Amino acid sequence: MSNTLAGRDLVSIKDLNKEEILRVLEQAARLEEQCQRQPKLNLLNGRILAALFYEPSTRTRLSFESAMHRLGGDVLSAASAAKTTSAAKGETLADATRVISGYAHIVVQRHPQIGSAKEAAEGATVPVINAGDGSNEHPTQALLDLYTIRKERGQIDGLNVVMVGDLLYGRTVHSLSQAFAHWDVTLTLVSPPALRLASPIVDDLKQKIALEETEDLATAMKTCDVLYVTRIQRERFSDPADYEKVKDSYVITRQLVESTNPDMTIMHPLPRVNEIATDVDSLPGAAYFRQADNGVWARMALMALILDAAE
Amino acid sequence: MSNTLAGRDLVSIKDLNKEEILRVLEQAARLEEQCQRQPKLNLLNGRILAALFYEPSTRTRLSFESAMHRLGGDVLSAASAAKTTSAAKGETLADATRVISGYAHIVVQRHPQIGSAKEAAEGATVPVINAGDGSNEHPTQALLDLYTIRKERGQIDGLNVVMVGDLLYGRTVHSLSQAFAHWDVTLTLVSPPALRLASPIVDDLKQKIALEETEDLATAMKTCDVLYVTRIQRERFSDPADYEKVKDSYVITRQLVESTNPDMTIMHPLPRVNEIATDVDSLPGAAYFRQADNGVWARMALMALILDAAE
Amino acid sequence: MSNTLAGRDLVSIKDLNKEEILRVLEQAARLEEQCQRQPKLNLLNGRILAALFYEPSTRTRLSFESAMHRLGGDVLSAASAAKTTSAAKGETLADATRVISGYAHIVVQRHPQIGSAKEAAEGATVPVINAGDGSNEHPTQALLDLYTIRKERGQIDGLNVVMVGDLLYGRTVHSLSQAFAHWDVTLTLVSPPALRLASPIVDDLKQKIALEETEDLATAMKTCDVLYVTRIQRERFSDPADYEKVKDSYVITRQLVESTNPDMTIMHPLPRVNEIATDVDSLPGAAYFRQADNGVWARMALMALILDAAE
Repeated sequence: MSNTLAGRDLVSIKDLNKEEILRVLEQAARLEEQCQRQPKLNLLNGRILAALFYEPSTRTRLSFESAMHRLGGDVLSAASAAKTTSAAKGETLADATRVISGYAHIVVQRHPQIGSAKEAAEGATVPVINAGDGSNEHPTQALLDLYTIRKERGQIDGLNVVMVGDLLYGRTVHSLSQAFAHWDVTLTLVSPPALRLASPIVDDLKQKIALEETEDLATAMKTCDVLYVTRIQRERFSDPADYEKVKDSYVITRQLVESTNPDMTIMHPLPRVNEIATDVDSLPGAAYFRQADNGVWARMALMALILDAAE
Repeated sequence: MSNTLAGRDLVSIKDLNKEEILRVLEQAARLEEQCQRQPKLNLLNGRILAALFYEPSTRTRLSFESAMHRLGGDVLSAASAAKTTSAAKGETLADATRVISGYAHIVVQRHPQIGSAKEAAEGATVPVINAGDGSNEHPTQALLDLYTIRKERGQIDGLNVVMVGDLLYGRTVHSLSQAFAHWDVTLTLVSPPALRLASPIVDDLKQKIALEETEDLATAMKTCDVLYVTRIQRERFSDPADYEKVKDSYVITRQLVESTNPDMTIMHPLPRVNEIATDVDSLPGAAYFRQADNGVWARMALMALILDAAE
Repeated sequence: MSNTLAGRDLVSIKDLNKEEILRVLEQAARLEEQCQRQPKLNLLNGRILAALFYEPSTRTRLSFESAMHRLGGDVLSAASAAKTTSAAKGETLADATRVISGYAHIVVQRHPQIGSAKEAAEGATVPVINAGDGSNEHPTQALLDLYTIRKERGQIDGLNVVMVGDLLYGRTVHSLSQAFAHWDVTLTLVSPPALRLASPIVDDLKQKIALEETEDLATAMKTCDVLYVTRIQRERFSDPADYEKVKDSYVITRQLVESTNPDMTIMHPLPRVNEIATDVDSLPGAAYFRQADNGVWARMALMALILDAAE
């Protein structure tokens, strides 16, 4: 099977068709299994990843870097590129990424602006992976989420998925919901009215999958297989009183899970603050830390395929 | 000999018994010798260290990272985790370290809060080493200090040790003084009244070793084998006048060393500002830079033992 | 041929004689060619580079780090050493570099103060490379610039070189212009009166090479082989009106190049803001991105020679 991902950028999850997503998930499973036997592989020996984070994210950055080390490659790391690079001097992202292309074989970029990943990819002469461009997209999160769902539930088709929280600004929600369009998923979106998923995405998804919007979390949880929780951030509300009104409405407690559907799989892109109570952590379906672990395998798979070193 | 350190955390120097401390020191000596012949070993090939520094410390961070590279392992580095991680979003340390456990095989953490290392260790699923938790402890500094004393003086038993400076807030003093409890050491504590070692530690130590407190540095130096100097920080004093009063009282000059006891070994956890004059540096007993060098061997030994890769 | 660079510091480009510069350039060409066949060499296997950046420069830092990885070595990185090191506590640079010497086999330092590289080198027990000390020098930039000129033009002797922009504060200009003294170069300096190259350097250069100063860029471009453009920074002017007056006078456009001398090689240490229009990028002589790429080969060569691992 020819590798259609070789040499490609990943700016949006929509850059990948279903076959390509499946290829990443299968490669991730193979790499996870290999790493159980052998902590470091030699697939990307001599290859260099540049991790350019113009916005802080230790978690995502270290996940990519861990993935690169396990593949046998090396890492160049800019943890707060905004302050410490030429960006401060007025250089364009395209120029910056063109220069970094001379230092690395693949670039991962996090940047606060929507569209920044596309701009970087246009300047680069090596592949660029979007690790979050503002509130727009975070496609590798969608890949690790899909990988987690397959591992936890055996399959993606036929599942009832409930996404709850801030669906308007959550880039992980944007990427994952659009990825679901490739499967037979029933999607229920639960959010305060002010944080509903943007209607262009909702309208597009409704053409492809069964989708319902509601504010009633408890009812939605009764039939859900996968509950995908996101954090509601205070800074999204212009009036603090509005935040106070909704902040506790979508808190997942052990009691709530056990009284609705104790068998559900609970996911969260993390960090969580208080939207999942810590007494949920010990439930067998609490998958959010395993989900974070899976980021390494999914990102290994993606980088190995893009650099055409996968088996 | 079974390795009782395998898989363990190191939160406090009191986590280690005397045999375990000696095991680290002997391993450190072996690794130092091996690295003279061969700059990079393969003991931790494929293993990943995550260095999470929520408080700046280039020195300690790079010492651990150098140790990991020399052991053949890889490093994930967060130099200013406080600003650039989910900590800023309200995530607990336990959650943060649980996630990082999926990316690395061992975690080293520096954090400004007392007790933070314990909290991180509780969340982690891999071993955690405390690289300083506020003014509480810095156990690997105690290990490298003991290693230095053995190298410089041949043995620890029978020594007169004088510790001078800020004994109240100095975490290196806390860890090292408590480690001395395992040996036949005579300890003299020299500090301004406001910066004396906390009485619970003093009372505990008095049960185990000969201990005297004084403000008279020159007299203490006459009989000392090892002089351990620490910096007095302006910010520890609520009244700046109090700082001005004491800041020059404990400055070690070449003249002071030569007139009291030129044979003594002089140590300092560094950085020094002016508490040791630079004309002391060329004295044969000025061991503080060698002490810093020793940090690499002591940390290599500790990590190799915890990851059960030592010989 | 014995390697006279082994164990040496590189503080100023004047530390190197012509033979040593040529040795670096030839080594760089060999390493570039080897890396085409094999992405990672083993010349510095087990050796550790410490990159200490007391001033932000992702570009230069990652260039050195990429060079070290390609040589098979490891990297310790302090991206914003000023805030996160003992410098903030009042430690001297000499002390800091002495300590880091225990962790690494070679140190690269960027620091905002003139003379800081010299101070660091005096404290260090391993070789120190100056990656920029304030507005003073940036000798590795001069090496990669010379390497680029040789690659683009075949030779250095006999060329007409025009340097334009901020010649007063530009450390790359200081290092490169002084390196030209070793060749038969005709140098034309184009700048606003307030930003002319300092007269001691000009006077010294006039003893060695043909040198002319002018404000007329277009005329200078007609006969130039190599145009070296630097950025004029707003913060260099005490009166903003003075900046506004000159900022657009030295903008290189495609039209300007094509109307004066389309065959010229155009260089820039980057980042550029608007002093070279983006429509210049596609001209065959637009060498500034290739110049940035060359930094990796020049720095590999320098480090391999200093650590005496070159062939």
